[in-house]
Amino acid sequence: MFTKVLIANRGEIAVRVIRACRDLGILSVAVYSEADKEALHAQIADEAVCIGPAPSKDSYLNISNIIEAAIGAGAQAIHPGYGFLSENADFARACAENGLVFIGPKEETIRALGDKTSARDMAREAGVPLAEGSDGIVETIEDAAHWAEKIGYPVMLKASAGGGGKGIRVAEDETQLKEAFESASSEAVVNFGDGRLYMEKFISKPRHIEVQVLGDNEGNVIHLYDRECSIQRRHQKLIEEAPSPFLDEEHRRSMCDCAVRLAKRAGYVGAGTVEFLVDSQQNFYFCEMNTRIQVEHPITEAITGIDLVAWQLRIASGEKLDIVQEDVPRCGHAIECRINAEDAQFRPQPGTLQSMHLAGGAGVRVDTAVYQGYTIPPFYDSMIGKLIAFGCDRAQALARMKRALSEMLFEGIVTNTDYQLSILLSEAFETAQFHTNSIEDGTFDTKR
Amino acid sequence: MFTKVLIANRGEIAVRVIRACRDLGILSVAVYSEADKEALHAQIADEAVCIGPAPSKDSYLNISNIIEAAIGAGAQAIHPGYGFLSENADFARACAENGLVFIGPKEETIRALGDKTSARDMAREAGVPLAEGSDGIVETIEDAAHWAEKIGYPVMLKASAGGGGKGIRVAEDETQLKEAFESASSEAVVNFGDGRLYMEKFISKPRHIEVQVLGDNEGNVIHLYDRECSIQRRHQKLIEEAPSPFLDEEHRRSMCDCAVRLAKRAGYVGAGTVEFLVDSQQNFYFCEMNTRIQVEHPITEAITGIDLVAWQLRIASGEKLDIVQEDVPRCGHAIECRINAEDAQFRPQPGTLQSMHLAGGAGVRVDTAVYQGYTIPPFYDSMIGKLIAFGCDRAQALARMKRALSEMLFEGIVTNTDYQLSILLSEAFETAQFHTNSIEDGTFDTKR
Repeated sequence: MFTKVLIANRGEIAVRVIRACRDLGILSVAVYSEADKEALHAQIADEAVCIGPAPSKDSYLNISNIIEAAIGAGAQAIHPGYGFLSENADFARACAENGLVFIGPKEETIRALGDKTSARDMAREAGVPLAEGSDGIVETIEDAAHWAEKIGYPVMLKASAGGGGKGIRVAEDETQLKEAFESASSEAVVNFGDGRLYMEKFISKPRHIEVQVLGDNEGNVIHLYDRECSIQRRHQKLIEEAPSPFLDEEHRRSMCDCAVRLAKRAGYVGAGTVEFLVDSQQNFYFCEMNTRIQVEHPITEAITGIDLVAWQLRIASGEKLDIVQEDVPRCGHAIECRINAEDAQFRPQPGTLQSMHLAGGAGVRVDTAVYQGYTIPPFYDSMIGKLIAFGCDRAQALARMKRALSEMLFEGIVTNTDYQLSILLSEAFETAQFHTNSIEDGTFDTKR
Repeated sequence: MFTKVLIANRGEIAVRVIRACRDLGILSVAVYSEADKEALHAQIADEAVCIGPAPSKDSYLNISNIIEAAIGAGAQAIHPGYGFLSENADFARACAENGLVFIGPKEETIRALGDKTSARDMAREAGVPLAEGSDGIVETIEDAAHWAEKIGYPVMLKASAGGGGKGIRVAEDETQLKEAFESASSEAVVNFGDGRLYMEKFISKPRHIEVQVLGDNEGNVIHLYDRECSIQRRHQKLIEEAPSPFLDEEHRRSMCDCAVRLAKRAGYVGAGTVEFLVDSQQNFYFCEMNTRIQVEHPITEAITGIDLVAWQLRIASGEKLDIVQEDVPRCGHAIECRINAEDAQFRPQPGTLQSMHLAGGAGVRVDTAVYQGYTIPPFYDSMIGKLIAFGCDRAQALARMKRALSEMLFEGIVTNTDYQLSILLSEAFETAQFHTNSIEDGTFDTKR
């Protein structure tokens, strides 16, 4: 096992990884920007290194500064967390070139799965269902119109290098298609430096359901069941639960098998997530594979008892999975609410946390990186923590989540806890009748 | 199910019960002394009623004030928590006489198990092993000497009405016996208003291991496995774990079966705990049965997934157990550390909590009743919270507990977290080589 690991991230996921290191007896090295001097991750790690000014490109996205920090601290490996450099194949390569273990899949796996068209090819080869779409890149508007006729409107244009909901457009007809092509392509250039697009059949009111997988260096791959992540606003997940209350066991098994087949086909090593869009008949279609730990991983940990971040570290250090698929436990139900420092219009609200009281008690887990007196800097994501509730069944998990949310107290900043509570109290949530557009559609506004 | 329940307690257990009520959709009524106006339980309950001045006898032990508060608030039931009136048969009777459900076993069960000699009789009838001892009360010093000859020194004198380590003496020979008889008897009079003593063979370096049981109104009784509670100072538990790392599965099964037999013999309804002393050969002897929820119940909840306080409420409202023994889950290992506001000499240290940071993350549960800015009153128990760590095995639970303890921050008051950590870091704890006298013996002072 490693003796020292650098965590190339900030916020709650950096704290999460530091904790996993500590549990395994590994020394942790935090990196922080000049704006993050007072951040919790920098304070609780065994060592902390400043890697540059506040803008991410100068610090958390600065590969050479991070590599230098790791070498300077004598770390053997780097955990990238999520976001930032976590799915950057060049970073994985830079680690390898400098004799550092990148805690994640191989560089070429990241590259192959990060490119949406090659990921689709791989999924097809693995027998994973795909929404009907273009066979690869759509070069021109004319090409797009040709494919749209073939697939049938409505269609979706998606950036090949995309992620996080950026570079995606829906077109109902040819007029919309032209506009969509141009705006998606230019958004993709701005965000990913790559304007290439591909097309898919647009699935109406889909659910977003994903499967957690773990692969080791010997080709063993297991899944850790599914997560329902349909409650999103602007393509950002807000509430997740495991398992999905929508899938029946037959479709669950089939979806999980697909995820394992794709991971095996990709030679996947470490923790990864295969995302699917699911229609109202439980038909599911491969969406993408995320080659990193997900924000919502704790709900899978809650229902399986398996520590995913610890396993990322163990696998990266060469350990073999010590469990076979049939022995993966699954028990109960878990829900996660993302706590964001934002107002009712979802605008980030940085500020100073004058006072804080966290929920606790039976079935409650809190993952946060804030503390009383901490000033939330304006430069980064608005998520300040995650609240996870676990129960024997969905009803108990939901009751505990409502209770825990109502106990959370953040004075001095604006958070979305009341908004989260309003969703949980809705009939749509209780009956699990929602899809990825439900927030925009006002589905949760109906009070019970 | 009840619609409103009064919680006749304070501190973390009051918060715990309020949370369980909330999870079940029950309104909660807190009671508080004049010294507890600012206490968390009084703030987070749906209603709160002041029941008198700070001294417990005038408030938390004042039966008529509590009954009056319950009737005034329209509560249908009273949860007594632990300590205070929780094992007071007169209180259970007063509840019944006023049309209130006492959330616990029947009055006569409390009475029968509260009297140590009648409890021993019951255990004998149920085929539960007893340490050799007097057949009932030892009336005089001469009687005591007679029994001691028969049992063989060393012997233990114990108050028949005792509990919490009060009224207990060990005698190695007849000279010590005389002194012990007088001091135990007078301590028992002072503490319990009842100076009657009985005698038992003294077990050297015993372990304290207990079994959690749940019984319903139809005579169904299940056990929820054992808890190792040997780490004590002055008969107060400090660190508990489930399951015991000392018992093998054969002795565990046998001990758990004994607990169920005793509970059935006693017509036990609700949550209860059967305590045993265990010698170095894993021979176990009935000690006493606690007819209430225990401080350390969360470790059992962690390894079984069963919400004990919710079940207390469900059973008291007439629900039948929905699980049979064979289906009681048991998975992993859990450890609890009691967080006390006390100094290195175990002296309570009340004060104002200027700042607080609680541990979180994977496998960590926090149950506390304090918050930033709260002033701990000097009138009550020094325990301010409990930290529970759960893992797939003892090593993982221990690693997480060490990590979590080191994250806990209480500024403005003195706590025992460093002391707890020193115990966890000892070789004796890691190898689980300890007994009830280990703290006094300095066993944990050996650093690894």
